[in-house]
Amino acid sequence: MINYRLSWLDSHLEMYRDTVSRFVDREMAPLDEEARERGNVGHELWLKAGALGLLCSDIPTEYGGGGGDFRHEAIFYDAMARRGLTGMNPSVHTIVAHYLLNHGTEEQKREYLPRLASGELVGAIAMTEPGAGSDLQSIRTRAEKRGDSYVINGSKTFISNGLLAGLVLVVAKTNQAERASGMSIILVETAKSPGFRVGRVLDKLGLKAQDTSELFFDDVAVPTSNLLGGAEGRGFYQLMSDLPYERTIIGVMAVAAMEGAVEATLAFVRQRKAFGKSIADFQNTKYRLAELATITKVTRSFIDECVEALVSGTLDAATASMAKLWASEQQGKVIDECLQLHGGYGFMNEYLIARMYADARVQRIYGGTSEMMKEVISRAL
Amino acid sequence: MINYRLSWLDSHLEMYRDTVSRFVDREMAPLDEEARERGNVGHELWLKAGALGLLCSDIPTEYGGGGGDFRHEAIFYDAMARRGLTGMNPSVHTIVAHYLLNHGTEEQKREYLPRLASGELVGAIAMTEPGAGSDLQSIRTRAEKRGDSYVINGSKTFISNGLLAGLVLVVAKTNQAERASGMSIILVETAKSPGFRVGRVLDKLGLKAQDTSELFFDDVAVPTSNLLGGAEGRGFYQLMSDLPYERTIIGVMAVAAMEGAVEATLAFVRQRKAFGKSIADFQNTKYRLAELATITKVTRSFIDECVEALVSGTLDAATASMAKLWASEQQGKVIDECLQLHGGYGFMNEYLIARMYADARVQRIYGGTSEMMKEVISRAL
Amino acid sequence: MINYRLSWLDSHLEMYRDTVSRFVDREMAPLDEEARERGNVGHELWLKAGALGLLCSDIPTEYGGGGGDFRHEAIFYDAMARRGLTGMNPSVHTIVAHYLLNHGTEEQKREYLPRLASGELVGAIAMTEPGAGSDLQSIRTRAEKRGDSYVINGSKTFISNGLLAGLVLVVAKTNQAERASGMSIILVETAKSPGFRVGRVLDKLGLKAQDTSELFFDDVAVPTSNLLGGAEGRGFYQLMSDLPYERTIIGVMAVAAMEGAVEATLAFVRQRKAFGKSIADFQNTKYRLAELATITKVTRSFIDECVEALVSGTLDAATASMAKLWASEQQGKVIDECLQLHGGYGFMNEYLIARMYADARVQRIYGGTSEMMKEVISRAL
Amino acid sequence: MINYRLSWLDSHLEMYRDTVSRFVDREMAPLDEEARERGNVGHELWLKAGALGLLCSDIPTEYGGGGGDFRHEAIFYDAMARRGLTGMNPSVHTIVAHYLLNHGTEEQKREYLPRLASGELVGAIAMTEPGAGSDLQSIRTRAEKRGDSYVINGSKTFISNGLLAGLVLVVAKTNQAERASGMSIILVETAKSPGFRVGRVLDKLGLKAQDTSELFFDDVAVPTSNLLGGAEGRGFYQLMSDLPYERTIIGVMAVAAMEGAVEATLAFVRQRKAFGKSIADFQNTKYRLAELATITKVTRSFIDECVEALVSGTLDAATASMAKLWASEQQGKVIDECLQLHGGYGFMNEYLIARMYADARVQRIYGGTSEMMKEVISRAL
Repeated sequence: MINYRLSWLDSHLEMYRDTVSRFVDREMAPLDEEARERGNVGHELWLKAGALGLLCSDIPTEYGGGGGDFRHEAIFYDAMARRGLTGMNPSVHTIVAHYLLNHGTEEQKREYLPRLASGELVGAIAMTEPGAGSDLQSIRTRAEKRGDSYVINGSKTFISNGLLAGLVLVVAKTNQAERASGMSIILVETAKSPGFRVGRVLDKLGLKAQDTSELFFDDVAVPTSNLLGGAEGRGFYQLMSDLPYERTIIGVMAVAAMEGAVEATLAFVRQRKAFGKSIADFQNTKYRLAELATITKVTRSFIDECVEALVSGTLDAATASMAKLWASEQQGKVIDECLQLHGGYGFMNEYLIARMYADARVQRIYGGTSEMMKEVISRAL
Repeated sequence: MINYRLSWLDSHLEMYRDTVSRFVDREMAPLDEEARERGNVGHELWLKAGALGLLCSDIPTEYGGGGGDFRHEAIFYDAMARRGLTGMNPSVHTIVAHYLLNHGTEEQKREYLPRLASGELVGAIAMTEPGAGSDLQSIRTRAEKRGDSYVINGSKTFISNGLLAGLVLVVAKTNQAERASGMSIILVETAKSPGFRVGRVLDKLGLKAQDTSELFFDDVAVPTSNLLGGAEGRGFYQLMSDLPYERTIIGVMAVAAMEGAVEATLAFVRQRKAFGKSIADFQNTKYRLAELATITKVTRSFIDECVEALVSGTLDAATASMAKLWASEQQGKVIDECLQLHGGYGFMNEYLIARMYADARVQRIYGGTSEMMKEVISRAL
Repeated sequence: MINYRLSWLDSHLEMYRDTVSRFVDREMAPLDEEARERGNVGHELWLKAGALGLLCSDIPTEYGGGGGDFRHEAIFYDAMARRGLTGMNPSVHTIVAHYLLNHGTEEQKREYLPRLASGELVGAIAMTEPGAGSDLQSIRTRAEKRGDSYVINGSKTFISNGLLAGLVLVVAKTNQAERASGMSIILVETAKSPGFRVGRVLDKLGLKAQDTSELFFDDVAVPTSNLLGGAEGRGFYQLMSDLPYERTIIGVMAVAAMEGAVEATLAFVRQRKAFGKSIADFQNTKYRLAELATITKVTRSFIDECVEALVSGTLDAATASMAKLWASEQQGKVIDECLQLHGGYGFMNEYLIARMYADARVQRIYGGTSEMMKEVISRAL
Repeated sequence: MINYRLSWLDSHLEMYRDTVSRFVDREMAPLDEEARERGNVGHELWLKAGALGLLCSDIPTEYGGGGGDFRHEAIFYDAMARRGLTGMNPSVHTIVAHYLLNHGTEEQKREYLPRLASGELVGAIAMTEPGAGSDLQSIRTRAEKRGDSYVINGSKTFISNGLLAGLVLVVAKTNQAERASGMSIILVETAKSPGFRVGRVLDKLGLKAQDTSELFFDDVAVPTSNLLGGAEGRGFYQLMSDLPYERTIIGVMAVAAMEGAVEATLAFVRQRKAFGKSIADFQNTKYRLAELATITKVTRSFIDECVEALVSGTLDAATASMAKLWASEQQGKVIDECLQLHGGYGFMNEYLIARMYADARVQRIYGGTSEMMKEVISRAL
């Protein structure tokens, strides 16, 4: 019923998808339980993904990328989300690459893009601070120019890939007197940056295998050439420009998770019996699954449309926000219902649906909360 | 924000749409209040629509139709639903034409299709009976073969276009010993059929301008050549075969009504003021409208996909049921919220939203209830 | 299942309830269809209700009232709402009486309360204006003092009991320079007030038998002794003070309608058959009705608690707003589901559920919209 | 706003509540993080609770209990649930005691009730099996009578208190040829029962500090005097008879968790700032919290009514199922919304709301799923 052939796949992409699926099934899935206990997937997996060409697949080949487009990226996110594998976060990694590609100096691109594509450097974006969530302009981390260096001081939290990160894009105030126009992005290569420190890897409701961390910057000095794009005060603009891309990724993951959840639930209810018949044969089960399959199908239709629009360069900010808002909200509802159809098993982490449930909850929060999406959409009305 | 350019429109169809819109605005809308009071739109309007080529637009020209495809039909339903005009029911009329086209004898097609296309005959389908709703096979109206005639006895209810109908497709048992295989469809030309009688035009919650009626058949005799397709026992099969078409129409009307409702509400909240500012500027209003615009956009995406699939002949029964289920349920929710944003005005019939609210309620019921749709979908899972 | 014995009934009140039920069944119900067509219940019915002691039942006997408490009032609203009878609006009438009782001069009480209690005068409150809904302080109707008179000019809309009203409490600005403190309430006896005119009886989605009207005041002069309470600028305060009472009434009507709807639906699904069994025996029907009975039971529990608190004088404004918000929202949901379980019959006005559906929609709007209730509640948090 | 004074508290119970709160705050809360990591609260805590008189508070003093009623029990569950402390499960423990009290032989009562009340023995009920959830009658664990012993073989799963249990009530088939009437309950004192083994302590989505376990029985022999009540085939009946009690407990915990969640969220949004103002001051926040406070208040009203009915012996099975169904469903919704209002912090386990979210999910499943509750309710309609 659920059509796993995404509307925008062609035969070339199908082949790419086979490669991705094999990697996910053979390299990633078997390590997931261990990664969940440890709280991160390990650097090794990133290197393997890089070696296979799965990282930065939509970055031009001249910078070491795959030379593909967003569909290649989407295939990777889809494959992981469908299987409930949320430890590796290549979306933040890719967005780091995009910031470099779209806003970096030629020198910055040549220095960092190949190393991100190979997995040598894992990318992270240090944006959120303890005192500032959606209200980005009120951040307090500052980067002061002293001679040939920027000296960074401050602390960040909720940073995806925080522990494994080799390259952190730090959002900082280069001019504290101003709000948006005082913000800049500074590249910090963690291994070369004394004063940089990873705080706690945060204990989260879900995403257990993902190293969401606190980061601390105590007089971290980097060369002024590490200012993204080479001009101060462009940080807010740079951050805003890739939001549709980021939000579409969340939509892609959401609908893939929904499809995976409905598929797992169908399999479960067919095999479980109660009162002498399969759970799948109760009218209540049938009608609920019909509803869930419908929501999933409708959401797939919209997300596929957004993916195609993104590839063709016609996806506007409000529609991307709709993709994020809609798909993450439906993901929450569908997975909640799927869990219920599992009965007591749904509460056990050995079942996919229990892990999916915990992981799903943050999709309505990160990358801009549902409330923030409504704000963006309402402005376009 | 809401994109009124349906994804499947081309320049030819845009021109057709202009014609349709002009007809709806100039000929139909001004008569709506009167039609609502009277309980029907009058035969004159059907003749005008026929003269303009708006009826049977997807029937081949050789039978007097427009020679177009489902998109032409959809444009007409869309134009009316968007404006809250629900008095004329060309969908049932078109389905009558489709039954003839797909299952009728050549003689039946030549006799009736041109007269349906011109509006001379308004088409109706007499299916539901007082004692049988979703459970079609339990109908009791019977058609007995006596010499060269079928003699029909029974009563029907909830018949759209019942009062104005010139041609009624009567679903009857030609063999009462059997369920599905005892059912046939008989063509009854009302003006030539003594014993045929229109009962009450039903007093409904909404669709005030539509002549939903009871029909009575007392020894109504028609020539045996009026048996649809010429073979007995094919009725159930004939009824089932066009359901995806019918259900897609309901989806098309639903999403158009949603778009019309959101547009009207946006206009309303911008112009109304409370506590010194426009209602549109309250955060609650903004967030709700963002949600409604999102649901509408997502639904549009899915319905457009279904329309394209129907035109290309790839729409399966389960997906069509999803279109009907999903869009009619969302229509209910969206219009309910839009009405709320109108405050007290939303309860007044002079406002579009109040009429849309009353009309919307039946969309989850006719053409197969939401529950029946879930049944169909669940079978495909 | 659904316990029709309200928690606060005692044997005396049970007897009163029998009287009320008899009146509603014998005098009111048989005239409802006619009243719905005419758009009002007629003055005769008010006089009968008055003669039986059903009006102003919680007004002291010394002013012609029944000498009871809010429970007597609630029994009357409950009996009508349960049966879908919404033509007579004694709640507004009672609130008029309460304004007089709580804020009127002794002379005003003696003059008007007995005539309200007998039904000689039907009471109405002229508050809302075309340009001002929830934002009461922005009204423009003005009452200018000229000698011994107030001269009233302005227009009102959405006025319940507008056509039949013999006594209208007009909310007007006696000092246009101020907002709340410029507002006063003036008593207008319609039969004695040249310049007073009833405009359109509004064509509404529901409440078809209720005479919601526009009112116009052109130089309507009344004695200055008709100023409620005898002091100017007290209008806003007077209006606010009885809101908990008014909102509890709406809650009482909502839960009674829910109980009536669930009862009617249970009866319907038991008697209707499909696919060889009673609709009541399908798991989908059973589970939905279990949900609806649960919501109704929970709502009853809360409303009964509020009624008891109101009688004992401990009901605060926020809790009364919760009663109004909660019960009217649940009424909307429950009746919508009940209608769906009726299938096509649910859309026909001859069925109770169709009328209840249309009537229910305004419960979330009048007496303060759901949004206004949230505002009130949030202030108390 | 949220009234922490439960309607059924009197001054004696208030004092008891102070004792309970002190215990929970001083003895239980400080150990929770450690207990969550370890997967159980440890036996020590049970002994302390027993010493204070918090266990078996509604068991008669002659058997070592507290001599109180259900309100004493409710106070303990309420205090823990409100603070998100879900490691200790005295509800199962109490139900074990109730089975003994209501169905046990005098000897069984004298032997076990005092040891349960002191916490020497932690009680568990071994009902669910890997192949049988809601469909209890299909269990396969068997107890065969051999001489003076019952020899038990089988495996159980999802057993609350499984690891710490000193006394397990094993639901087993004493007659495998029959369904309900072949079931009996056997008392197994774990320390004295070779062949009894605790399998995995299950890795759950939530309830991290609670030792939900698999239990295995390999030829576990117990004296025939350990048959609950002394007669075979009474197990199903015994299990059914205390369901209203058990379901009310879940309702009590649900509404307390809701109140705790809303309180924590109010505190959070007041203290957090965004875009220059407190999050609490955004209209969206205000309206949502108003909705959540309303749902919580309404649910409290119903649960208090159920508690009083249970104490007075008038709570029927359907109403208890409503309490469980309603409160657990609302708990899910309210806590989900509260988490969202926390933004990113809501996903972090150091925040109460994140733990409450994970814990809440099982409330709709254990003690009879929501679907099972609807089944029970529908039978009473």
